[in-house]
Amino acid sequence: MRSDVRIGVVGATGAVGTVTLELLAERGFHFVRAFASRRSAGNSVKFGGEGLIVEEATPEALSAGDLDLCLFSVGAAPSRELVPHARRGGAVCVDKSSAFRLVDSVPLVVPEVNGERALEHDGIVANPNCSTIQLVCALKPLHDAAGLRRVRLATYQSVSGAGAARMEELRAQEPGAGNVLMDWEFEGDESEEESKLRAETRKILELPELPFSATCVRVPVLVGHSQAVWIETEHRLTAEAAREILVSAPGVRVLDRPTPRDAVGGDEVLIGRIREDSAEDNGLAFFVVADNLRKGAALNAIQIAELLLERRPIAA
Amino acid sequence: MRSDVRIGVVGATGAVGTVTLELLAERGFHFVRAFASRRSAGNSVKFGGEGLIVEEATPEALSAGDLDLCLFSVGAAPSRELVPHARRGGAVCVDKSSAFRLVDSVPLVVPEVNGERALEHDGIVANPNCSTIQLVCALKPLHDAAGLRRVRLATYQSVSGAGAARMEELRAQEPGAGNVLMDWEFEGDESEEESKLRAETRKILELPELPFSATCVRVPVLVGHSQAVWIETEHRLTAEAAREILVSAPGVRVLDRPTPRDAVGGDEVLIGRIREDSAEDNGLAFFVVADNLRKGAALNAIQIAELLLERRPIAA
Repeated sequence: MRSDVRIGVVGATGAVGTVTLELLAERGFHFVRAFASRRSAGNSVKFGGEGLIVEEATPEALSAGDLDLCLFSVGAAPSRELVPHARRGGAVCVDKSSAFRLVDSVPLVVPEVNGERALEHDGIVANPNCSTIQLVCALKPLHDAAGLRRVRLATYQSVSGAGAARMEELRAQEPGAGNVLMDWEFEGDESEEESKLRAETRKILELPELPFSATCVRVPVLVGHSQAVWIETEHRLTAEAAREILVSAPGVRVLDRPTPRDAVGGDEVLIGRIREDSAEDNGLAFFVVADNLRKGAALNAIQIAELLLERRPIAA
Repeated sequence: MRSDVRIGVVGATGAVGTVTLELLAERGFHFVRAFASRRSAGNSVKFGGEGLIVEEATPEALSAGDLDLCLFSVGAAPSRELVPHARRGGAVCVDKSSAFRLVDSVPLVVPEVNGERALEHDGIVANPNCSTIQLVCALKPLHDAAGLRRVRLATYQSVSGAGAARMEELRAQEPGAGNVLMDWEFEGDESEEESKLRAETRKILELPELPFSATCVRVPVLVGHSQAVWIETEHRLTAEAAREILVSAPGVRVLDRPTPRDAVGGDEVLIGRIREDSAEDNGLAFFVVADNLRKGAALNAIQIAELLLERRPIAA
């Protein structure tokens, strides 16, 4: 099946696109084409042992009807423009931008959490924000066991979440010059990242009124997002019970004190510091870490693609 | 008054000791002696335009009776050993270690918050942990206005909080190699830093039962601790009201989105992101940043010393 499905990777030269190509090669996909903006067209990108020549991502190229699946990792504006063309050409589009995430008719999917929803697609499946993905992998099994009543979290997000250019900037920076900042657009008293995280978590967990407060923060780390989370549940869970639930949750690995360095290059969401919230009776606190380029973006999108291929074969 | 008070700085070659000497010179103190362990004795340290020869911090030297005030920035074990000697020699000791902070008879003081308590000393005043100091500067005025009911926070602590060697390590590190970690000793499911933060906050605010949960995290930043804080209050405070209270609070400056880089080298605790907690009716969220070597340590200790000198003159 994997051997004959024709996949387009749009945004192939970016931080997430690069990892997408790496993972597709690792996972046995063969017919892969790389697309990017005119600026990068003609360049070569790595795909397994070979190089792929980057094609320009034009409406014509994407709608030509020779792609079964199209993985988009570009910004919301280019996704909004290009995804409909690829869909018109017959490709099922997995979009990593925020363009379609909150559209009612578009499933927003983390396979371990709400994979079934992907099957309801009408040509587009949205991939959540990197922070949302790792968070819901921790929240869902706890919600199933005890009923989620409230969520608060502070994030420690790596610069790779802001793109390849920011990674270069950090690599070129004088050691010790790192800062902690909130480099997102703000609307009122909230960053876009914070409102995305709330809206997407509510949609995925199907808890539209879930009380939810996030403080999103960027730290001078290259790859790997961390989150300090507090939750309240309807039914009391001991730390021990929560740990047991998470140990057997899909896509999750429980460690004592996971760090971004533990997560980089891995596929799992790492969860640690699982303890009762000393400030609240039905409260738990824990720490969640994942590779934001893999599980937070490229890997999750490919897992969506694989789920679609297994459950509703796309390729001829 | 400042011109004739005789001050000893013990731990003069460390990260905090260095800043202590710098601040003492800036603030017009003249008779300053530098003490450190035998290893550093005989070296020279900067004090204003001059150099001071470092003396060995022996029980004999500290108890000789020729110091009015002694500022300790050494670990808990050497403080426990040496502070009693300096006190016996007649010096009022301001100790920055954790050795005496939770001793009932020792005032634990942040001048803007509970300065009056310093006057009750019996020869020792303890300086809180760096994280506690900046936190209580934010909590106290809000507590006075609306009654604090619950506190949760996640910290972003710089490596300088772990000492000068860790600063050198970060400066020598390959760019982009930074990690997010919890490099404290753990007892059960909590780090020492987290339990200190709770116990000290409760003592300073005189709220021994305050529900309090912290997740303390180290980030690859040289200087400046940040905190993402959520509180619940007895009476509802709007974000606007909270902002007005903090704008007129002593030692505090309100900014939109403060960063460690904004705080470094400054004396104020910076507070931003003041907003109502979208997950809780009587809840507020905010972000607190301070220079952990200055307000978090050296400056706070000197402010305690100055308060003692003004209110109960020590020098002959």
